[in-house]
Amino acid sequence: MTVKPTITAFQLSPDRGQGQARDMRVRWALEEVGQPYDVRLVSFAGLKEPAHRALNPFGQIPTYEDGDLTLFESGSIVLRIAETHAGLLPADANGRARAITWMFAAVNSIEPPILEIVIAKFVEGDKPWAVERMALVFDRIRARLTPLSEYLGDAEWIDGDFSAGDVMMVGVLRRLHSSRLLLEFPNLAAYVARGEARPAFQRAFAAQAAVFAAATKG
Amino acid sequence: MTVKPTITAFQLSPDRGQGQARDMRVRWALEEVGQPYDVRLVSFAGLKEPAHRALNPFGQIPTYEDGDLTLFESGSIVLRIAETHAGLLPADANGRARAITWMFAAVNSIEPPILEIVIAKFVEGDKPWAVERMALVFDRIRARLTPLSEYLGDAEWIDGDFSAGDVMMVGVLRRLHSSRLLLEFPNLAAYVARGEARPAFQRAFAAQAAVFAAATKG
Repeated sequence: MTVKPTITAFQLSPDRGQGQARDMRVRWALEEVGQPYDVRLVSFAGLKEPAHRALNPFGQIPTYEDGDLTLFESGSIVLRIAETHAGLLPADANGRARAITWMFAAVNSIEPPILEIVIAKFVEGDKPWAVERMALVFDRIRARLTPLSEYLGDAEWIDGDFSAGDVMMVGVLRRLHSSRLLLEFPNLAAYVARGEARPAFQRAFAAQAAVFAAATKG
Repeated sequence: MTVKPTITAFQLSPDRGQGQARDMRVRWALEEVGQPYDVRLVSFAGLKEPAHRALNPFGQIPTYEDGDLTLFESGSIVLRIAETHAGLLPADANGRARAITWMFAAVNSIEPPILEIVIAKFVEGDKPWAVERMALVFDRIRARLTPLSEYLGDAEWIDGDFSAGDVMMVGVLRRLHSSRLLLEFPNLAAYVARGEARPAFQRAFAAQAAVFAAATKG
């Protein structure tokens, strides 16, 4: 690949550089495989404009452009990166399929209840039910973290060697940092910390944090 | 493949044979590619037992066993079927990547707000906020269906020829049948109807409906 792919990211990340936006997963995957990339920053207004919606109809980041291919959805982009570079998928077909199962589990079994924190806290934060309902949301998250924690046990990564499944699962679990839910599951907290300690994660994190720092400087 | 794969499905589907359970997507994909399969039915109690949780840690259906490979997550299973049989992914690498993007969009951009209907209606159906909150849930679903409808336009399928992306997207959108939300987006309703009219869909639907009919007979 002689031309670098281009991803999109928030011009001003809503989490103030904590790396919760979904470009982080893509940056991390790109760093893991050693693929340089360009970033095009998009304003909140720009997300809804035709130019960006031609890349992602839902007006979200990240997107991924590589030659004449355009993708969206962090899971799909990470899978594309994993399929076109060495290092993020097992060599054997069965292991590869299991890693992909964990990618889907991250975005379809774990992330949906976690996303409800944002709904409960911000979107419906002014509603009379906000406080009472947050407890229910937390319980539904626990109902998914409990079997995940039992499955992981003492393993280092979710299914054998580190893979794209871990990029997605750690990326999703990191959304719980602002709650204290991960602390209830020490092995999951340690799993996330192992992911965050990887040099590729740290490079990706620094890159997205620098965007926020530059945007808010002076 | 000389041995048929085995999937799991509800012994007694909560929707009384309307094909809303996620085994429907897998059955449909298997029918599209002409792959015979076996079904092992699981009771609600059985879902939580060690034997089933060894297949899916989250205690859900469907699972997929093919030789010594075990998978869960409908998206992952449909992708595996699509990758090992002709007919559900474009031949060119870029088209294939785009079809996978739509699979992830189905389960991560469209399905999460739709799943909230079940939370609002059943899980929190006895709460004082149930009615008022359902209107908010519907609005968040509309906020995703609107760009999806605009993207689809007059196209027959979501991105070129029928693909695994359509299996997943139609499968997710069908969850809206019991609400009337699809009727607000005529092209999405027609898209779902086109999917449901496919002979492979109809065979899969009949197979899962027959399970419920047999379980409740006499």
